Amino acid sequence: MNGYKLDPRLENDSTSVMITGLCDLRLSRDARWPWLILVPRRAEITEIFELTPLDQVLLAFETELVAKALKEITGAAKINIGALGNIVRQLHVHVIARFEGDANWPGPVWGFGQADPYEDGKRDEFIAKLREALSS
Amino acid sequence: MNGYKLDPRLENDSTSVMITGLCDLRLSRDARWPWLILVPRRAEITEIFELTPLDQVLLAFETELVAKALKEITGAAKINIGALGNIVRQLHVHVIARFEGDANWPGPVWGFGQADPYEDGKRDEFIAKLREALSS
Repeated sequence: MNGYKLDPRLENDSTSVMITGLCDLRLSRDARWPWLILVPRRAEITEIFELTPLDQVLLAFETELVAKALKEITGAAKINIGALGNIVRQLHVHVIARFEGDANWPGPVWGFGQADPYEDGKRDEFIAKLREALSS
Repeated sequence: MNGYKLDPRLENDSTSVMITGLCDLRLSRDARWPWLILVPRRAEITEIFELTPLDQVLLAFETELVAKALKEITGAAKINIGALGNIVRQLHVHVIARFEGDANWPGPVWGFGQADPYEDGKRDEFIAKLREALSS
């Protein structure tokens, strides 16, 4: 964790759900899709292959735990996983629940339209469900 | 490999580079970006978390070997990794070399514009470089 600091754009666009072994697990503030972001708490990492081999395995493990929980609580048609980082270079992995007919389906979510904030209470409700699914 | 069969759309849109421990590593026929696709040779898998734990680790390992080799041979600004599958449900992982100012930069590559085929010889040249990088 030496020197780790969350990028201010990630901080602004998402809210922390929990700290995992490796990551800060965050929920996007864009309510158009149930959208989670895993940020490895390591300094100055841009590509997954720059992590140590152990951290790479941890990241894969945590990504799939989160993907499975998200599929279970949302009943999504498909989970989309992506590590792009063309704009924000700090390594972060997107895990997004997709549904037939959702915004930009079947295209990708990144860069599409304008973010739509959560209604009052809906975000906290979703975070509570997610924490429960991840701790069971 | 029991019952594994490559989806005809993946077969049509890409060409095999090599068979790895888990995957068929393929090069997209779209020359706009150096674009690789890893297809785990397992039957009826749609999400990474449906793979066995060992296969999940193999997939993470092979994805990062390929990402590192692609970064080295292309000098890309950023590697984009994604498992979407909204259209083709057979599990496949994209590993794409991105450059500032490339087609749709800094947006995603999926669903953007029309594919642009490789010029004669360029594809074989790129595959040879890639095989060399992956075997060193």
